[in-house]
Amino acid sequence: MRTKGDYHAALEHLSVLPPDNLSKNMLEKLKRVFVAFKSFQQDFQEHDPSILNTGKLDVNATIDRFEAVLYDMGDVAEEYDDANTRIYLTIMAERLLQMAKLFQDEPEQQSFQRGIVWTAELSSKTEMLYVIGLGLSDEKDITVRGLEAVKSCERVYLEAYTSILMVDSTKLSEYYGKQVIVADREMVESESDAILADADKINVAFLVVGDPYGATTHTDLVIRARELDIPVQVIHNASIMNAIGACGLQLYNFGQTISIVFFTDTWRPDSFYDRIKENRALGLHTLCLLDIKVKEQSIENLARGRKIYEPPRYMTVNQAIEQLLEIEDNRGEKAYTGETLAIGCARVGQPHQTLISGTLQQLVDADFGGPLHSLVIVGNKMHELEAEFVKEYAIDKTSFDEIVKRDYSL
Amino acid sequence: MRTKGDYHAALEHLSVLPPDNLSKNMLEKLKRVFVAFKSFQQDFQEHDPSILNTGKLDVNATIDRFEAVLYDMGDVAEEYDDANTRIYLTIMAERLLQMAKLFQDEPEQQSFQRGIVWTAELSSKTEMLYVIGLGLSDEKDITVRGLEAVKSCERVYLEAYTSILMVDSTKLSEYYGKQVIVADREMVESESDAILADADKINVAFLVVGDPYGATTHTDLVIRARELDIPVQVIHNASIMNAIGACGLQLYNFGQTISIVFFTDTWRPDSFYDRIKENRALGLHTLCLLDIKVKEQSIENLARGRKIYEPPRYMTVNQAIEQLLEIEDNRGEKAYTGETLAIGCARVGQPHQTLISGTLQQLVDADFGGPLHSLVIVGNKMHELEAEFVKEYAIDKTSFDEIVKRDYSL
Repeated sequence: MRTKGDYHAALEHLSVLPPDNLSKNMLEKLKRVFVAFKSFQQDFQEHDPSILNTGKLDVNATIDRFEAVLYDMGDVAEEYDDANTRIYLTIMAERLLQMAKLFQDEPEQQSFQRGIVWTAELSSKTEMLYVIGLGLSDEKDITVRGLEAVKSCERVYLEAYTSILMVDSTKLSEYYGKQVIVADREMVESESDAILADADKINVAFLVVGDPYGATTHTDLVIRARELDIPVQVIHNASIMNAIGACGLQLYNFGQTISIVFFTDTWRPDSFYDRIKENRALGLHTLCLLDIKVKEQSIENLARGRKIYEPPRYMTVNQAIEQLLEIEDNRGEKAYTGETLAIGCARVGQPHQTLISGTLQQLVDADFGGPLHSLVIVGNKMHELEAEFVKEYAIDKTSFDEIVKRDYSL
Repeated sequence: MRTKGDYHAALEHLSVLPPDNLSKNMLEKLKRVFVAFKSFQQDFQEHDPSILNTGKLDVNATIDRFEAVLYDMGDVAEEYDDANTRIYLTIMAERLLQMAKLFQDEPEQQSFQRGIVWTAELSSKTEMLYVIGLGLSDEKDITVRGLEAVKSCERVYLEAYTSILMVDSTKLSEYYGKQVIVADREMVESESDAILADADKINVAFLVVGDPYGATTHTDLVIRARELDIPVQVIHNASIMNAIGACGLQLYNFGQTISIVFFTDTWRPDSFYDRIKENRALGLHTLCLLDIKVKEQSIENLARGRKIYEPPRYMTVNQAIEQLLEIEDNRGEKAYTGETLAIGCARVGQPHQTLISGTLQQLVDADFGGPLHSLVIVGNKMHELEAEFVKEYAIDKTSFDEIVKRDYSL
């Protein structure tokens, strides 16, 4: 997640460092490392790597220089604990590793191999905040990289208010061998500094269902970490935003994504109607994310200040369609109708995933089973191959053929 | 990935089974299972699960029925090897497991617990084709679930023509303890039946960089597997389509995704220009995926039928911007200009990820390092929090502030 212009930014960063942070000797050494690295990169950009072995680049001289820089970096990293500089060193080490792969076939270059081992150690040495995506379903959907990171952490938080994992936190604690602290919205917003405490000295993990950047809320934590000069590494995972490809429609034909919230007696928001209309005007598919209510209080409990929470509620495809049709009835702009083709999706990415396609009217009573649900309103750009895939799980194949002929000329 | 209407489809499936596939007795048993399961589901839909313990649903009677059905299912599964029916049984077993969680706190219901163990075994018993996403970078980006699946497979293929993993297949083979067969486009298209051979008797893995549904091409294999009655399970992972959230822009504000291919002297396609224009007219961000050329032959080698391949080529952010500006010069419809805000992204999701924001003109010469690159053209819906995040890695923060003021009134 460290995203600046790398060593350029690092050089700039060095020039503003308070001088008493670092001995003059070390500062000079550090600058030498950055400058040397820049020169390496130029060499590698000027020379096509594939001609390395044809003698146009002096391999042995390059390796000698590599080695000298690596050991300089080692000296600096050992004595220096500024998080920014450490992460720049790590970036450089990783780039050197990439370049180094070009030399791996030369068996005599053992001293260089030692350098590689050293850079690998440096890479794993920096303490930081890990923001780790857990994927779609349960404790085994974490990536191997993510699992290793969790195991290296002294504190592990689970974000538990924008989405829901299909296992509870005690199961996660057991699987990771680490106590998992459930962080609700309040905690993340008001105690972010407690979450980040010491993350420049120990590893801290913040676990997020799906992908870390699926929801807006976590960028706050990342921005706060930056302000505190704590390095952040994000470990990505599947989220509904890409896993929805499982329905057989191509991801690049989706327009903007919308969220549908539970109607109440007095609050029936429909601003997403315009988004669907915009997407459909361009022929694009619309992914509708459906509301989740977690840790909600009843009005009575809220009024009495009792922290008693209602059981979680998940909007079903059926409820979403009912609301959509009600809005269309009110607006009447034909952004879609009961005859529009859609795909109801339940438990996407889980082994017992269910997909059913049909018109909104056909799907309003279909049985999708347990949570989580989402809905795709199909756009007019549907391709023949997409249609073939979607027909496979049509609620009624004969009627599907008719709709495809009517609306898609396929 | 089995996506039909579950037991409804299963019942239908049973009625068309050739009678000699199954003894009459077993067929009756199987139908009884499906009907009983349907009735369970109705019970659970009619009764809010949270009132189970208040006596409104007869818990003990339900558990007795559960148990009977589970053992019937066991009989059938043991004697029956039709892949479709096996997968329906698995789906039911998993749903029963979900419902069963409601009872887990009742210690006396041990016979029911045995049923749970049995369903868990059934769930893991079906042989199939696994289509497994490898994520963004290297061998450790696979999910734990995916890794377990790979280890259970007798043959493991790696799709190697739509994207590139940053490690080679020998490293994967080593890490998985399985020989990884690199499958190029030709192989997947012309030998799909060889890939799928016996996948109803043994597990076969098809590995895909990113998410399995990131690219169109793999749906063919899934459709072919279905035709051969081979169960398919997809294991999702991060892809650039959701990991691009790392740039700090919200995924739900992205429009359709475009691909930019390498211009040649004679082929300079620009059809995506209209897509960018459509997105920007709605204020939406555009993710531009940049061309990868793998296993390309030179015209000379192609003409002489020599299977000698050029080194892989990856389009840089710089090349993409040059092409974009050339197209804008030709078309002149101001879908974007050199002054449009954009984000160049390199190695998204890898530890040495680089992001730089600025105008297209500012980014055309910026240094992004090695592959893979992608580009985001920022839409006018950028929110203040997004802008704060994006400013962090601006090529020039002062000019960034000016642009944001000029184009976004922020």
